[in-house]
Amino acid sequence: MTPTNRLLDRIDRPQDLHGLTEAELQQVAQEVREHIIDTVGEIGGHFGANLGMCEVTVALHSLLDSPKDKILWDVGHQAYPHKILTGRRDQLSTIRQYEGLAPFCAIHESEHDIMGAGHASTSIGYAVGIKEGMKLAGDVDAGKVVAVIGDGAMTGGVAFEAIHQAGGLGTPIVVVLNDNGMSIAPNVGALSRYFNRIRLNPKLWHAREGVEEKLTTLPGGIGAAFDRLGPQLKESIKSFWAPGLFWEELDWAYMGVIDGHDVGALRAALKAALEAGRPVVVHTATVKGKGFTPAEEGGLAGMERWHAAKPNSITNRAPTVAKPASSSAPVAAPAPPQYTQVFGEALIEEVRRDRRVVGITAAMNSGTGLNLLQKAEPDHYFDVGIAEQQAVLFAAGLALEGAKPVCAIYSTFLQRAFDQIVHDVCLQELDVTFAMDRAGLVGDDGPTHHGAFDISYLRPLPNITLAAPRDEAQLKLLLRTALTHGGPFGLRYPRGEGVGVALPAAADVRPIPIGTGEILREGSRVALIGYGSGVGKALEAADVLAEHDLDVTVADARFAKPIDRELMRTLAADHELLVTVEEGVLSGGFGSGVWEALNDAAVAVPPILRVGLPDRYVTHGKPALLHAEVGFTGRDIARRVEAALFAGRGEVLSEA
Amino acid sequence: MTPTNRLLDRIDRPQDLHGLTEAELQQVAQEVREHIIDTVGEIGGHFGANLGMCEVTVALHSLLDSPKDKILWDVGHQAYPHKILTGRRDQLSTIRQYEGLAPFCAIHESEHDIMGAGHASTSIGYAVGIKEGMKLAGDVDAGKVVAVIGDGAMTGGVAFEAIHQAGGLGTPIVVVLNDNGMSIAPNVGALSRYFNRIRLNPKLWHAREGVEEKLTTLPGGIGAAFDRLGPQLKESIKSFWAPGLFWEELDWAYMGVIDGHDVGALRAALKAALEAGRPVVVHTATVKGKGFTPAEEGGLAGMERWHAAKPNSITNRAPTVAKPASSSAPVAAPAPPQYTQVFGEALIEEVRRDRRVVGITAAMNSGTGLNLLQKAEPDHYFDVGIAEQQAVLFAAGLALEGAKPVCAIYSTFLQRAFDQIVHDVCLQELDVTFAMDRAGLVGDDGPTHHGAFDISYLRPLPNITLAAPRDEAQLKLLLRTALTHGGPFGLRYPRGEGVGVALPAAADVRPIPIGTGEILREGSRVALIGYGSGVGKALEAADVLAEHDLDVTVADARFAKPIDRELMRTLAADHELLVTVEEGVLSGGFGSGVWEALNDAAVAVPPILRVGLPDRYVTHGKPALLHAEVGFTGRDIARRVEAALFAGRGEVLSEA
Repeated sequence: MTPTNRLLDRIDRPQDLHGLTEAELQQVAQEVREHIIDTVGEIGGHFGANLGMCEVTVALHSLLDSPKDKILWDVGHQAYPHKILTGRRDQLSTIRQYEGLAPFCAIHESEHDIMGAGHASTSIGYAVGIKEGMKLAGDVDAGKVVAVIGDGAMTGGVAFEAIHQAGGLGTPIVVVLNDNGMSIAPNVGALSRYFNRIRLNPKLWHAREGVEEKLTTLPGGIGAAFDRLGPQLKESIKSFWAPGLFWEELDWAYMGVIDGHDVGALRAALKAALEAGRPVVVHTATVKGKGFTPAEEGGLAGMERWHAAKPNSITNRAPTVAKPASSSAPVAAPAPPQYTQVFGEALIEEVRRDRRVVGITAAMNSGTGLNLLQKAEPDHYFDVGIAEQQAVLFAAGLALEGAKPVCAIYSTFLQRAFDQIVHDVCLQELDVTFAMDRAGLVGDDGPTHHGAFDISYLRPLPNITLAAPRDEAQLKLLLRTALTHGGPFGLRYPRGEGVGVALPAAADVRPIPIGTGEILREGSRVALIGYGSGVGKALEAADVLAEHDLDVTVADARFAKPIDRELMRTLAADHELLVTVEEGVLSGGFGSGVWEALNDAAVAVPPILRVGLPDRYVTHGKPALLHAEVGFTGRDIARRVEAALFAGRGEVLSEA
Repeated sequence: MTPTNRLLDRIDRPQDLHGLTEAELQQVAQEVREHIIDTVGEIGGHFGANLGMCEVTVALHSLLDSPKDKILWDVGHQAYPHKILTGRRDQLSTIRQYEGLAPFCAIHESEHDIMGAGHASTSIGYAVGIKEGMKLAGDVDAGKVVAVIGDGAMTGGVAFEAIHQAGGLGTPIVVVLNDNGMSIAPNVGALSRYFNRIRLNPKLWHAREGVEEKLTTLPGGIGAAFDRLGPQLKESIKSFWAPGLFWEELDWAYMGVIDGHDVGALRAALKAALEAGRPVVVHTATVKGKGFTPAEEGGLAGMERWHAAKPNSITNRAPTVAKPASSSAPVAAPAPPQYTQVFGEALIEEVRRDRRVVGITAAMNSGTGLNLLQKAEPDHYFDVGIAEQQAVLFAAGLALEGAKPVCAIYSTFLQRAFDQIVHDVCLQELDVTFAMDRAGLVGDDGPTHHGAFDISYLRPLPNITLAAPRDEAQLKLLLRTALTHGGPFGLRYPRGEGVGVALPAAADVRPIPIGTGEILREGSRVALIGYGSGVGKALEAADVLAEHDLDVTVADARFAKPIDRELMRTLAADHELLVTVEEGVLSGGFGSGVWEALNDAAVAVPPILRVGLPDRYVTHGKPALLHAEVGFTGRDIARRVEAALFAGRGEVLSEA
């Protein structure tokens, strides 16, 4: 598949671009694009945004001396061309795979990856710090600093905070605004409309100086009139024609709109911006999915569909044609539905049952399953953009009016709204539900995306109830529980498929009494107490132990706050070892909550073996590989239970 | 002091304003102002911002029908006039006092307090939610919704997120931008300069239509030229003269600048805004400290000085003249220095020792003691505005360049940067120190400001070190420890005075080995293990117990992560009861960390009595009263130790 005579094959470091002509650079950009289509189409990975960034990346590296000069890639799923041009061309086929290239930038992977970000809207903030850090070290010319940010990420408030600081300080950094009109889903909100007005107005593609000059030479005395009106009015004319007032009012210089697929135009603009000695934004218009027809010409649906490519989804640079199933082949059992889909469908049922229910997403509508709600009940669906803080404040406002908002935000992204949960929901005792998809290890997206902390960071908060389903049927029951409870409620569930149990019909969905667990399997000596996806692991461990003639008890705690104190007392009284199993970090986690409940109840506490995620960030890769790496499997748990019984004492081995 | 014949004495609910003339309303506003000066000058409280808001508040309530119509006060320390006009006039003298009026708005205090906020930049977010909630309930005319926000709070990114959402949806809310040019300290950054340009330019006080008209009638053919150029150019002229483009580009209508002390002008603008049926911002210019000469005419220093008034600081509407100390009076021992001041001075010493050290504040420079650094080492001082998220991203960028940033942010406000700590500092293992002042119960500011959660929300994070000093001398040593350690470090210390120990000279400051505690008092049977301000309480408890002939051990853990496992093993082996004492919530707190360390070390764990803050939000009032309320005193701890020894088992009584 790799063509011979590619210029790209001679680019082993970004400096190899420096001697090339602009025509050659344009060719390299196209070769990068084809390399991504060929590789990612086969192995899967982020796709559309990367195809749009080939020329911008080539133009930047052709002018800069990385890593002395520093490029900060917002989120980093647009950084595949950067990885290809910085010595990782031939490793691209390993991206997102266990022990392969990281899905986003990663400090430890390359000296060219300045920062390792997977959450949006942060790159400008780093850039200001890096440049001011150079100044502090007495070397403001230590290197150029460029942040590349998408128009979607601009909706995150922290990006605005950074623009405001840089404008205030006059920090000489360059922001490349990669404006493709999309986050993962189409962008929403006023900022998006602002960008659209600029992008879609052909007049605004002219440079302002040209326009000004033309105006002063208008016939009929008008040109002369302009001259007489002086510089202030001229400035106003420029203002109208130039689209950058939003930036200029915050003391940034604005350049744009630049064709993001024209290497020559990009280089001319970037050269000027890099030499300006003040904050400059270079607004580039790119096409998400550029060069891959189904994405580029498929409209919004095509771009959203091809934000990421599935493995083997592309053959010969076109979507793979599915082979018709052979009639003689055995029919595979259908896979269980994804938790995301079960949640999305259950939320529609809840909205139809109780019209006060509303779903809120922060720019992740299909990732959270809220695309289903959007289609079925558009008036009960809100997308606030990449703005998790506002998602929660908005929910607080809705709750004040008696609505029952459900903030559907991944565990890792909900971290960004922590203060709003503490101060605007729990302190006010408002009826807001947090539906945390991707709780636990998420797999390919790696450490920036694992939902490892939510049990620990939410359990300390007064007035909140925390629950997690062991399977997709329980998810429906617990969602109903949250919506009939009437206060802050956190519901976590993992990425991926359910366990395959039958889903209750709408009429059979009943709330579960708050703070009650249940015993799933009666045994002796050892009680395994699972929370959420930990229940399945506990049941697997029990099967392994049963093979070794040890019949243990397995319970589903269902709630991490309040913990079922009665159940815990009973289990503690009847067993010589308790084992807690949770897909979250152990410090302050569910296991500690079990101990706290028992200790506070002033009963004798048997040894507690806590199984969970280690006190370190976990890498990327398929969940099964990661679970094996951290010892979060039934077999590992069984082994540790036996060791603990043998040693007479529980010990945390998951961090081995 | 209360004059007779005040109009204000007839205002028992906001509707009582509805029949008054504008002259009478203007008079009521002045009476509100005098009521605040007289009351707050005597008892202390937020001051300057409230004096600036008297006319705006009267104008709003004269037009609205609260609480059907809803006013959201950002932060709420500008809401004293609102409290006075909504039935709490005669209770103002109890504000901020235990069992008195809340320092900010409080849902449970009044039906007119729609939301209970003490953190900045949130009011627009609630307003969008409330208005959309009315729409969802089928009654978009259920009431008008107004958010009142200061120009300082506009630097918080979440305010921008809300503006962006409201503009996108076209939600018909009104924002009153209270522009006084100050947060607590003078505002910083580009947005501040933007507001200044508008506020200081007298031309911009004209309505745009008037300007346009004048331009088209200019002599010499210019006016005619304007006419010929058509509506687009006219629009551009308007743009230049109108200051609201920042808002209008986000699809808000802009009105301003309105004199914020002219009730008639305010009412005219607000009336139009309330009827516009779309998002409208009314930009008002107010004077912080209006009507109190030392604030109003004292320049920036005067306004900052009078942000809040100390008790008895005002007599007869002028600053109280301090009485010269009588020479025969006994000389009082000087009070120990505040932790804030010790920190501020220590940070200067650190900057002078190591030029890589930098201090960062989020608009709280004197509150954090960084005003000292600003004066002594201005190049090593940064104020990012009310933007805690950006404070941490900026620090991350600085650390990438080898600097040693110290983010000095109150415990409660650091909650807003939680994701940045997880994702941008700890995951990247960057050398950033978090100096968390106001850790524990802060007193008068109440539940929005208590630093109750930081131990629990930081302990789960990999790569971070957590420490707390028991006194002001240890604060200096632990700051040095943080700055010589080379990774993420969280340092918490309480509000208020140190304990009165001698401070080490700069030459005697040495880092403390990471993860080591120390035994302060050797005893038997019971070991009290304090963390930070908990150590002092443990020592007090030991004194009480000694009176009862029980000589207990007292240790200072110094680190909550990593916990000194060797010390804990020794204490566990030698005592029949361990007592942990921390000024933070117990779920996942330091006490749970002690258990986790012992449990993981597979040693026999004696009963652990955990003393800390309860699982509820604590009210406002003097710290001593609050400590008594929650049982965080030496005497309470001693009583519980005796009960536990008697019962043979630790039990949490602090929540009683």
